Amino acid sequence: MTFHTFTEAHLRKFTVNVFLRMGCTPTDAALAADVLIRSDLRGIDSHGVARLSGYIRLWEKERINTTPDIRMVHETATTATVDGDGGLGLVVAPFAMKVAIEKAKIYGSGWVAVKNSNHFGIAGYHALLAVEQDMIGISMTNASPLVAPTYSSERLLGTNPMCYAFPAGKYPPVVVDMATAAAANGKLEIASRANHPIPEGWAQDKNGNSSTDPNELKAGGSLLPLGSDKDHGSHKGYGLSATVDILTAVLSGANYGPWVPPFVAFLDPPTDPVGEGIGHFFGAMRIDGFRPAADFKNHLDNWIERFKSAKTIDPDKRVIIPGEPEFAFEQERVVSGIPLIDAVVQDLNILADKLGLSRL
Amino acid sequence: MTFHTFTEAHLRKFTVNVFLRMGCTPTDAALAADVLIRSDLRGIDSHGVARLSGYIRLWEKERINTTPDIRMVHETATTATVDGDGGLGLVVAPFAMKVAIEKAKIYGSGWVAVKNSNHFGIAGYHALLAVEQDMIGISMTNASPLVAPTYSSERLLGTNPMCYAFPAGKYPPVVVDMATAAAANGKLEIASRANHPIPEGWAQDKNGNSSTDPNELKAGGSLLPLGSDKDHGSHKGYGLSATVDILTAVLSGANYGPWVPPFVAFLDPPTDPVGEGIGHFFGAMRIDGFRPAADFKNHLDNWIERFKSAKTIDPDKRVIIPGEPEFAFEQERVVSGIPLIDAVVQDLNILADKLGLSRL
Repeated sequence: MTFHTFTEAHLRKFTVNVFLRMGCTPTDAALAADVLIRSDLRGIDSHGVARLSGYIRLWEKERINTTPDIRMVHETATTATVDGDGGLGLVVAPFAMKVAIEKAKIYGSGWVAVKNSNHFGIAGYHALLAVEQDMIGISMTNASPLVAPTYSSERLLGTNPMCYAFPAGKYPPVVVDMATAAAANGKLEIASRANHPIPEGWAQDKNGNSSTDPNELKAGGSLLPLGSDKDHGSHKGYGLSATVDILTAVLSGANYGPWVPPFVAFLDPPTDPVGEGIGHFFGAMRIDGFRPAADFKNHLDNWIERFKSAKTIDPDKRVIIPGEPEFAFEQERVVSGIPLIDAVVQDLNILADKLGLSRL
Repeated sequence: MTFHTFTEAHLRKFTVNVFLRMGCTPTDAALAADVLIRSDLRGIDSHGVARLSGYIRLWEKERINTTPDIRMVHETATTATVDGDGGLGLVVAPFAMKVAIEKAKIYGSGWVAVKNSNHFGIAGYHALLAVEQDMIGISMTNASPLVAPTYSSERLLGTNPMCYAFPAGKYPPVVVDMATAAAANGKLEIASRANHPIPEGWAQDKNGNSSTDPNELKAGGSLLPLGSDKDHGSHKGYGLSATVDILTAVLSGANYGPWVPPFVAFLDPPTDPVGEGIGHFFGAMRIDGFRPAADFKNHLDNWIERFKSAKTIDPDKRVIIPGEPEFAFEQERVVSGIPLIDAVVQDLNILADKLGLSRL
């Protein structure tokens, strides 16, 4: 595979220009670009600028409103529901997380459900906004239905990620940011391109038979929940995914389950929606609402050190702290740039031509 | 296996008497008994009265304080830390959840971390206290270290359950109540008694080799996180378990990771504690803090109906709604009684003799 490496600044400028062409305000364009660039910096390439042309295709179909009136539609001291007005999730989500943070500053915690939004990028970006304020950050979103619950052959749930982020002292934040499926769609795509089989337990065919064919999803099959099968706890992965679906959509008034609009423009949204757009859920809790922040951070540092020094099965491996690999990527890529595979660069250059922008 | 069936009332009276003999106040004894009986009613036999003699053994070793001064030690409008004063988790946990609920009544949400507690029974009991008030209930606890994080051969985490409970309209509440390990210890015990191998992916030996021997845990092996191996997302199960450990213990000032005191009296607690007792975490959010409760319940009913009617792989099975089997057990056992296996009845009768109580 060929890579081309770009500086963060160059890629950011390009991305801002794309969002400006879509009609975003300069503030929104900068924010949306920041979410995507942060994803590339953190090594989560599947959620970075590689997604730009997908956002454009949805916008062309008028499924993204680039001048949304994002507003609170329901509120108590520590809870709120935000209507994203069909805006980019990349803009709606930080708005909502900031509402949660402001509430937490006053009352100790803040919780915001969001309806009428779109794909919000990496969950970790939003949760980390709270961590910067010495808070615990929580973010979740529902997503296009691709996952079958235990015993079913139907795609009823998205890969529905949940993220919990905690500030540490001398170490980077602990960031648990995970899809609730056994493996995300991107892993099947990589196997498909390489013409490799996938492990048992990631996917099933349209009749619900276990499959190692990475193209099964395109043939009507489904992803499996974390746990893979009943014996190994797939009902738990399904339960977590259901929790995300209920918190993000049943609570906010967004679409849930099989009614969630697809992220891809070539699939139309269901004609019988049960809510508006897709849903998110955010939380922020002040650490010093429970104990002095310095005490928490000292103990989290101790936790990290104990886990990092744990006895390992393989002498070449050690226990990884959640969020540690992404932090290492970020440290490195800020300096040495962001590598993009050739196919992504070509795709972005076609996009540039279409929008009348300079190529990458 | 021989079963003896007892009425709920009979078993409850017996259980209250055991707690009274331990020195609990009548109020605390009734509450602790209610948590255990509810577990048996809900079909979670591993966490019901079968645990009574374990609690007694811990109490005999003075590791449970039956006259605790349970109190808030830190507080904001919507957050608090509770010191359980070494009391029964069965009593400390409902106290803390009620604090969360009272805060939610006023401010929309309430969040309580607990230190210096003990085993709290089933997570669902506490979360359901919030559901009764038209709130979303969340409960978590850390637990004796039995689970190895991905790549490690050390037991550093408990089976650390998380529970999310949601009120529905015409259907029973949705209750996601799950250990974050691939399989709980109780499943290994059942296989061990039956002399059956366990599936690959539940446990590893003390060197970290995958094992199908149900006795591996007693020989220094460990349980595996949900996901079982790295390919199938064990780092996600580990991340969830870490999240529970941090929220329940690093946040509250309880012991975490390998420092969590064992639930069994024959293993001594670590001599170098990093906190006090074990930790819990509870949350309550008013549904009407986000949208009218009736709207939420209507949509959750719709969610339930869609999932229950999903196309299934096996015509004899259908998609199970989380909490549905436990609700069905409860409906049945309230009427027809609670079956206990012979070994549990014998164990409880020995306990009765020892405490000078009438046998079951």
